[in-house]
Amino acid sequence: MRTVEWADGAVRMIDQKQIPWALAQVDLFDYHAVAGAITDMTVRGAPAIGAAAAFGLALAARQSTATTVEALLIDLQQAADTLKAARPTAVNLAWAVDRMMQVARACQGDIRGALLAAAQRIADEDVAINQRMGSNGVALIEDGFTILHHCNTGALAAVDYGTALGVVRAAHEQGKRLHVLLDETRPRLQGARLSAWELEQLGISYDIIPDTASGYFMRRGDVNLVLVGADRVAANGDFANKIGTYQIAVLAKENNIPFYTVAPTSTIDLSLASGDDIPIEQRDPAEVLAPYGHQLAPPHFKARNPAFDVTPHRYLSGIVTENGIARPSFTDSLARAVAGESV
Amino acid sequence: MRTVEWADGAVRMIDQKQIPWALAQVDLFDYHAVAGAITDMTVRGAPAIGAAAAFGLALAARQSTATTVEALLIDLQQAADTLKAARPTAVNLAWAVDRMMQVARACQGDIRGALLAAAQRIADEDVAINQRMGSNGVALIEDGFTILHHCNTGALAAVDYGTALGVVRAAHEQGKRLHVLLDETRPRLQGARLSAWELEQLGISYDIIPDTASGYFMRRGDVNLVLVGADRVAANGDFANKIGTYQIAVLAKENNIPFYTVAPTSTIDLSLASGDDIPIEQRDPAEVLAPYGHQLAPPHFKARNPAFDVTPHRYLSGIVTENGIARPSFTDSLARAVAGESV
Repeated sequence: MRTVEWADGAVRMIDQKQIPWALAQVDLFDYHAVAGAITDMTVRGAPAIGAAAAFGLALAARQSTATTVEALLIDLQQAADTLKAARPTAVNLAWAVDRMMQVARACQGDIRGALLAAAQRIADEDVAINQRMGSNGVALIEDGFTILHHCNTGALAAVDYGTALGVVRAAHEQGKRLHVLLDETRPRLQGARLSAWELEQLGISYDIIPDTASGYFMRRGDVNLVLVGADRVAANGDFANKIGTYQIAVLAKENNIPFYTVAPTSTIDLSLASGDDIPIEQRDPAEVLAPYGHQLAPPHFKARNPAFDVTPHRYLSGIVTENGIARPSFTDSLARAVAGESV
Repeated sequence: MRTVEWADGAVRMIDQKQIPWALAQVDLFDYHAVAGAITDMTVRGAPAIGAAAAFGLALAARQSTATTVEALLIDLQQAADTLKAARPTAVNLAWAVDRMMQVARACQGDIRGALLAAAQRIADEDVAINQRMGSNGVALIEDGFTILHHCNTGALAAVDYGTALGVVRAAHEQGKRLHVLLDETRPRLQGARLSAWELEQLGISYDIIPDTASGYFMRRGDVNLVLVGADRVAANGDFANKIGTYQIAVLAKENNIPFYTVAPTSTIDLSLASGDDIPIEQRDPAEVLAPYGHQLAPPHFKARNPAFDVTPHRYLSGIVTENGIARPSFTDSLARAVAGESV
């Protein structure tokens, strides 16, 4: 089952808010609903929301009653703007929508059909890219390693297979013995709910730990490698990822533990010189006080909820892409990876 | 209202598990119940559990049916062992129980009366010591400061007033404008539930933040000072405190932010050369998966729950005690503070 796919005129996605309690799919028949599902995190994970937005634009084309190419392109541009505004930090969303709009503008024939084919191609490519990242990163994991992981970067974060947890999965498939410490990842608990659920299914050994305990385990020498995903990588290697990533990076460096991010080249935004320019989404404080309806503290208590942080490239050992592992200096290696060269 | 006190033959304490939803006191008539209340965190906070154990031993003396001094001392030793075993990390528990047993052994007359008076003295002294720490630490806080705080170190963590939050309170009482970022402090959420509740009552400006966000705010330059408590300080200044403290200390150093712990000399354990020898309590993983009955992830998912970590002294700017602020080299300054000298 793919995280997001096309099904009989609808965008079908796994409802990630229900995991680990239920595995349910939801069919969306309106691109506004797709944008809403991205915003409310029914679907989340940088590659997954890119694919969801691509299918959303194919859906918008079908919804449009325009009878001329010009009118259809106007409708599509409106849908593109709506979908891109659904979440600001992950660049994959904008990347997928822009690629789709290029297809629409270049199309000489059936735009609706071309868009659906293009969205399907983005989804299929994502699976293949994840598998290539798994192959490229697998040598980082030695037999017997314990890997610290933050948030969720498994199949649910992509169309299938996964990015950082895809590398873990590749090592497991090679028969390497490994253990994963899963940061629970407050406030939305992607580690405790999504990653643990995935590793249970894959039969990979893990323990959920509170986010407060990552440093404890690193200082004890229990962690051999840190693997995380990314929502946007700047040209110099600075990258935005789920809130809490920055502090894990600092702690990894302090404890001499290799720290890698695993990200397809669609996550790399060469238009930004550094991470300082990446927009950071601020979400509803209610997610902190009452995750999934569990009222942990009173609703009138004050809270802040930044959804991402930026990790400067100096903490980063390398970036695993589908074209190889980019290493410092990232300005050079990332440009080559984006150009399709092996790095 | 004191966190813990003596009331008509019972140990009366605020039930901290009910805060912020209800302010309720519970009367305990059996020292085993006092030990249980320490273990299950009905009462928590290093100074508070010290006072609770002292009153628990006074209660044990009243419960004992011994008719000779020798028999009473045997009963008391049993109670002392039970109370000391309730939690392993905070040394205040052992410190208070040992001090009580010295009173019992030295007493020439009414041991039961002497123990109650001694417990009362420990409680009264704790309040006075906290106020002195507030006075000693208040100069660390300048007008307009934002302070990052972990766990709960307010009145609820002591008999009254508080340790690290006592310093914040002293600054607030002096009219300094300040803001506190409260780590929610998973798994038991002492920041989101206890500290926020206390600051609401004191009218001190705060925001709860997920533990994943402390580094984000530090790197943005939003934090002027970090203040935390301590559960045990070794002779060299290494100290155990609530899980998550170590990583905040590393991040504070990385971002050039002063990092202080606030701890009475009863928290200093000169018998330990370094923090490596401090026992770290491992608690039930159910606290991670289902805090306060909120089942955030399925009960069969695997989790780890270390309750404390150790911060090496090299990350520490100073230790605020009732005898002044101990500064590096701590081996010297802590020995003098424990001896009652001004530091």
